[in-house]
Amino acid sequence: MRLTILLFDGFTALDVVGGYEVLANVPGMEVEFAAAVPGVVTADTGRLGMLAYRSFDQLETTDMLYVPGGPGVSAALDHRALLDCIRRLDAASQWTVSICNGAELLGAAGLLEGKRVTTNWFARDKVAAYGALIEPARCHRDGKLVTAAGVSASIDAALFLAGLLAGEATARLIQFGIEYYPDPPFGNGSPDTEPEAAKSVLRRIEQAALERLAARDIPF
Amino acid sequence: MRLTILLFDGFTALDVVGGYEVLANVPGMEVEFAAAVPGVVTADTGRLGMLAYRSFDQLETTDMLYVPGGPGVSAALDHRALLDCIRRLDAASQWTVSICNGAELLGAAGLLEGKRVTTNWFARDKVAAYGALIEPARCHRDGKLVTAAGVSASIDAALFLAGLLAGEATARLIQFGIEYYPDPPFGNGSPDTEPEAAKSVLRRIEQAALERLAARDIPF
Repeated sequence: MRLTILLFDGFTALDVVGGYEVLANVPGMEVEFAAAVPGVVTADTGRLGMLAYRSFDQLETTDMLYVPGGPGVSAALDHRALLDCIRRLDAASQWTVSICNGAELLGAAGLLEGKRVTTNWFARDKVAAYGALIEPARCHRDGKLVTAAGVSASIDAALFLAGLLAGEATARLIQFGIEYYPDPPFGNGSPDTEPEAAKSVLRRIEQAALERLAARDIPF
Repeated sequence: MRLTILLFDGFTALDVVGGYEVLANVPGMEVEFAAAVPGVVTADTGRLGMLAYRSFDQLETTDMLYVPGGPGVSAALDHRALLDCIRRLDAASQWTVSICNGAELLGAAGLLEGKRVTTNWFARDKVAAYGALIEPARCHRDGKLVTAAGVSASIDAALFLAGLLAGEATARLIQFGIEYYPDPPFGNGSPDTEPEAAKSVLRRIEQAALERLAARDIPF
């Protein structure tokens, strides 16, 4: 089975790696990273670079399409080659996955009309505007479409998929292999329990990230 | 404050990115990735490449030294430039951090004699052999030394550090920002509760990863 992870400038690294670390350990899984052009793609902070070794236009099919989110999604919504690639790969994929506000890219590609999906809490309205029905869940499956909430939810969504692909015993081993018995030190705040003040601050941080991306000073 | 993450062939990606995603969001934090030579460094599966834009010998000091683990640690134990770099940066660091069996590298650099540390469960004996006292914890602090258990424990260790560096309110926001209200689907097995059979299988998988590394066929 082939897993194709799409990268774009300003992706959030943990959106990618949380799922990758689980799915790359599913027996028989081949992983490939693709971007508009092969080369290093920079994550949202501008300090982490990840290698894409295929370009979107080289991709015809895949078994599992994986679309991360991040502050870079806003600009990527205008990226025709990326949206074409998403549509093309989804047409024959066994699974189509989005993490965080990567769901907006699926929406912009026309894939979410009438679908039940989850996303990062701050992207719910934008995703709903593409005709999706929002499930305020950490991970949700609607047919072949599996969507995750923000960032670290990529781990849980990938474990859910690993269970479907390889069986519970193997997925449980993978979970143990990455020592995923988490212990968040600062409560267990979900978007439905954290106060509105925290959301306001995070929206400002998100805005700052967008401005940083627009004035990108990349060290490599 | 500067965070320096050391990369080496066969590192585990989530060891790096779990901590990076949290720490890069601490206000005022600058992040740099370094390796033996600048360029793309391949993670343990051989399919994920991450960019190092400084070399070990360019590094004189840092505020926070961050050493990930992975199957590549075995070979890295013989890597003099890496061990020299760890010793040099630790000498003046405010914080020295290891994730997973990255603790073995701190041990090989001579930094763990008499220290209380945690590590991946399968590396406990090896780390103890460097004179460390093993704490079977997800995250442990001994003075300026902060060590994490395997892979995803990097998130918890980094949140712990974020709380010390930026205060609880900010660290809590970061935790919410990465939507870390985890929900492991396959129980909450820790190395102290999972059965011995599971550990045997994982040790075989680790061995296979070492063999894959030795016969590396990198696509880029």
